[in-house]
Amino acid sequence: MKISIAQLDYHIGNFESNIRKIREAIQQAREESADLILFAELAVPGYPPRDFLEFDDFIHECELGIHSIAQDCRGIAAIVGSPSRNTNPRGKRLFNTAYFLAEGKVMAMTHKSLLPNYDVFDEYRYFEPNRDFQVIEYHGIKIAVTICEDLWNITDTPLYTASPMEILIQQHPDMIVNIAASPFHYDQMSIRRDVLARNASTYGLPVFYVNHIGAQTELIFDGGSMVVDRKGRVLDELNYFQEDLRFYRFDKAKKNVLLSDRGIMGPQNLDTSRIALIHDALVLGIRTYFRKLGFREAILGLSGGIDSAVTLVLAAEALGNEHVRAVLLPSRYSTGHSVRDAVELAENTGVPYQTISIEEAFRSFESLLQPVFGDRPPDVTEENIQARVRAVVLMALANKFGYILLNTSNKSEAAVGYGTLYGDMCGGIAVLGDVYKTQVYELAAYINRSREIIPVHTIQKPPSAELKPGQQDSDSLPDYDLLDRILFQYIEMCQGPQDIIHMGFDEKTVRKVLRMVNTNEYKRHQTPPILRISPKAFGMGRRMPIVGRYLS
Amino acid sequence: MKISIAQLDYHIGNFESNIRKIREAIQQAREESADLILFAELAVPGYPPRDFLEFDDFIHECELGIHSIAQDCRGIAAIVGSPSRNTNPRGKRLFNTAYFLAEGKVMAMTHKSLLPNYDVFDEYRYFEPNRDFQVIEYHGIKIAVTICEDLWNITDTPLYTASPMEILIQQHPDMIVNIAASPFHYDQMSIRRDVLARNASTYGLPVFYVNHIGAQTELIFDGGSMVVDRKGRVLDELNYFQEDLRFYRFDKAKKNVLLSDRGIMGPQNLDTSRIALIHDALVLGIRTYFRKLGFREAILGLSGGIDSAVTLVLAAEALGNEHVRAVLLPSRYSTGHSVRDAVELAENTGVPYQTISIEEAFRSFESLLQPVFGDRPPDVTEENIQARVRAVVLMALANKFGYILLNTSNKSEAAVGYGTLYGDMCGGIAVLGDVYKTQVYELAAYINRSREIIPVHTIQKPPSAELKPGQQDSDSLPDYDLLDRILFQYIEMCQGPQDIIHMGFDEKTVRKVLRMVNTNEYKRHQTPPILRISPKAFGMGRRMPIVGRYLS
Repeated sequence: MKISIAQLDYHIGNFESNIRKIREAIQQAREESADLILFAELAVPGYPPRDFLEFDDFIHECELGIHSIAQDCRGIAAIVGSPSRNTNPRGKRLFNTAYFLAEGKVMAMTHKSLLPNYDVFDEYRYFEPNRDFQVIEYHGIKIAVTICEDLWNITDTPLYTASPMEILIQQHPDMIVNIAASPFHYDQMSIRRDVLARNASTYGLPVFYVNHIGAQTELIFDGGSMVVDRKGRVLDELNYFQEDLRFYRFDKAKKNVLLSDRGIMGPQNLDTSRIALIHDALVLGIRTYFRKLGFREAILGLSGGIDSAVTLVLAAEALGNEHVRAVLLPSRYSTGHSVRDAVELAENTGVPYQTISIEEAFRSFESLLQPVFGDRPPDVTEENIQARVRAVVLMALANKFGYILLNTSNKSEAAVGYGTLYGDMCGGIAVLGDVYKTQVYELAAYINRSREIIPVHTIQKPPSAELKPGQQDSDSLPDYDLLDRILFQYIEMCQGPQDIIHMGFDEKTVRKVLRMVNTNEYKRHQTPPILRISPKAFGMGRRMPIVGRYLS
Repeated sequence: MKISIAQLDYHIGNFESNIRKIREAIQQAREESADLILFAELAVPGYPPRDFLEFDDFIHECELGIHSIAQDCRGIAAIVGSPSRNTNPRGKRLFNTAYFLAEGKVMAMTHKSLLPNYDVFDEYRYFEPNRDFQVIEYHGIKIAVTICEDLWNITDTPLYTASPMEILIQQHPDMIVNIAASPFHYDQMSIRRDVLARNASTYGLPVFYVNHIGAQTELIFDGGSMVVDRKGRVLDELNYFQEDLRFYRFDKAKKNVLLSDRGIMGPQNLDTSRIALIHDALVLGIRTYFRKLGFREAILGLSGGIDSAVTLVLAAEALGNEHVRAVLLPSRYSTGHSVRDAVELAENTGVPYQTISIEEAFRSFESLLQPVFGDRPPDVTEENIQARVRAVVLMALANKFGYILLNTSNKSEAAVGYGTLYGDMCGGIAVLGDVYKTQVYELAAYINRSREIIPVHTIQKPPSAELKPGQQDSDSLPDYDLLDRILFQYIEMCQGPQDIIHMGFDEKTVRKVLRMVNTNEYKRHQTPPILRISPKAFGMGRRMPIVGRYLS
């Protein structure tokens, strides 16, 4: 049996595009005489469709899509993810379904059993879990069809009380298929390989795994579709961060996979170091966000600091340097070297830039507020005004010319609220919002790996917001090395204050940092969506009360 | 048996305050010789604790809280909601538990079976459902302890495949206790009474129901704790929108409830018209938000229009007129009557106000942008600049003096994106963000029910943003009567375009409105939390993709 894996970039609710892509892949697979082609979980609506699933009309569109795809499945079978209706009047209205299409119709449906409902996942919001397990037989081969999480309960800390494969294996399948929607984070590639290999070797069956690529707002899908042999060895991986279509031969007698027609290729041009993966994911995230929203041009404020520098380079890679607009917005507190660093970066990258001084506008607010403020001393208010004046200018340019403003805040700043709401926290998408400051430096080093693109002075100088004379980040915050290690324990590892202090961190610093994280929840509530590259990003994956008092 | 119901305002993660309140109520109940006192679902941590539940340290604090409350339960028993750990290594780590405390210790634990995971609820994110059902016997009385949703599967469209009471009734309980965390929306009061009455009459048992009051950011809890007799008649309801503590006598032989010591009182001073409930809920929502964040003073921009007028009155009721600051921020497009209306309102309410013209600051942006904009005609960009200049001024005052800025956008505007991000969409809390424009008029009429507080001219003039000469909302939007009816079908009723058109609405208008709602998801993503008064508010209860293409 010849099996094809189609790793595609779907777009939520864009049925015309999603269905066209699926049908074109089927056509191509048919031309290559494939018997079966595999598409990802919820490929028809795109993933995650979120509350669109609550619209009957949206489900109806999904059903029409499956119907039209089924028409093409003659002489070839396809497994395609799409929602289906639960006909039982009790329980959730939908299933998360793998449709088995052949002979021009729906031959079988397998519903997802284990519905992830943690971090960024909300599947139990929409779907009833499957309780009926049947392998699918096609051309004499028994296929155990599973959907993403269905294979993930094999870890050492099982989240669910049941495992679909434990039931399916009793029906003596010849192979496992897993259709997935498994978003990227920097450790996901190795976790994914482990889980699939563990399933393959536990059940002694090859696994065909197909994932999404592309991004849907904050969620980035790296692909990583793969074939694992019955011993748990990864035989082939499709390309990461791009669409791909490959073919394999399955030998029923040996219950194993042979080479594809073209030989095993593996992923092309992939640097698997963590920082390279983060880099590639962010570039894909920016590119897809703009394309799916129908925008081509980005704008950002360039301060001469490292965050805006790294953001600019990533945007230029994603969109092309001619599609990025850099604006220098100096105030009375901007240093000469910052302006020089910013200009040098723009010139190194070929990104067009312009300079607009905010001094006059800042002064007009000072004079307008003077009668109210009287002789109160300047404080964070005046710093915020500068940041907000910059935002007004950048948003005016974005509005007038049709750009999307890129937010350049990093995860360390977002965590402790070191930024101005409606000021530097503005933007359509936060490129570095899941990248700690120490990782931003790693990204800068990676960007400069073959030549100096980001000026070395930008990398070496002490970080400063330049909102008052001589200001440095270290006036208000612990050093980023220390800060990021505390934040990681609190945010990624969910460790409480006592736990972190027991690790040897200074109690006062820990309590101060954790309090800053909690009391700035209100700021993060109003900031742009953040491209997610870690296992725990701010946004939909971390849901915190605003009025909570814990630790504060 | 004498039973007390304690309806309290808990604060998420504020263990010191929550535990103190619980212990004081136990003390009071003991003084009144009560045998049993009931507290709400997840009373110890407050509801909803959200991802704090993922912190082991937070759970440990909850356990310490239960332990200290148990110490007080001698000669009296208490049922208190708090999370507990799932000792089974498979499945979610926690249960949502009703602790039965007596004789100074935990006598029994009942876990929640039906975990709401829709709209604003995420309980399956944290909790394993209960599968072990036992009535609790105390002083010879068998109590069926249930937690909120456990009683809600009795409706005509059951969301779950099982009902705890169907199992518990086989153990012949004498009464039902339901501890809840059931947030307000304008229909919830009557739904809640129906559900509880249906349970009481179906099982022939009285129901003691205890809910939260107060607010946790967007969620408002109205209370509505009550006692229903075995025939399904509501015997007593505690006060709405305030803390309350009452006592009842339960007669085991008759399996029914007798009067309380003080006679049945019912809720005091409650106008149950929908608009009065919305009004009372919003006032409670504002008041609690400020108190729990430790703020006392609000600021808002007063335009002379109806949204800011209603917001000001609600804030003055919630915080006291001396704790609200109104700022008039006229531009060259502000009409004289708007300024007069705003001043009249401030004077009617006794709210201090000041006037700060934004003209000079607006001009400084015009001149700063002129070299870039050249002779491009003014468009929405210039309108946005005005709104953003106002935001810079209001936020500067808020930062300097420690106010929270109130957002005055209504639900109709938020729906179609008729507002400026980082401009009039700023604020710490959106007071009217779940109130359609037509309902804002109803609120204004309600506010003016005994005297003209909001100037009649504010109510009668055509709505305008006053951002360009002669502008009216109806230039860009359908009339609000029509718009709100379409929005209601789309947002509250989840009807798709075809469904709404079939109801008789004009196809072009429907498609335009729905497209506006979808393409403005990015704006709503970055706006303040919205006080929720409807069954479907923007925010945590409505989760939509930003990059989705459906309908656009």
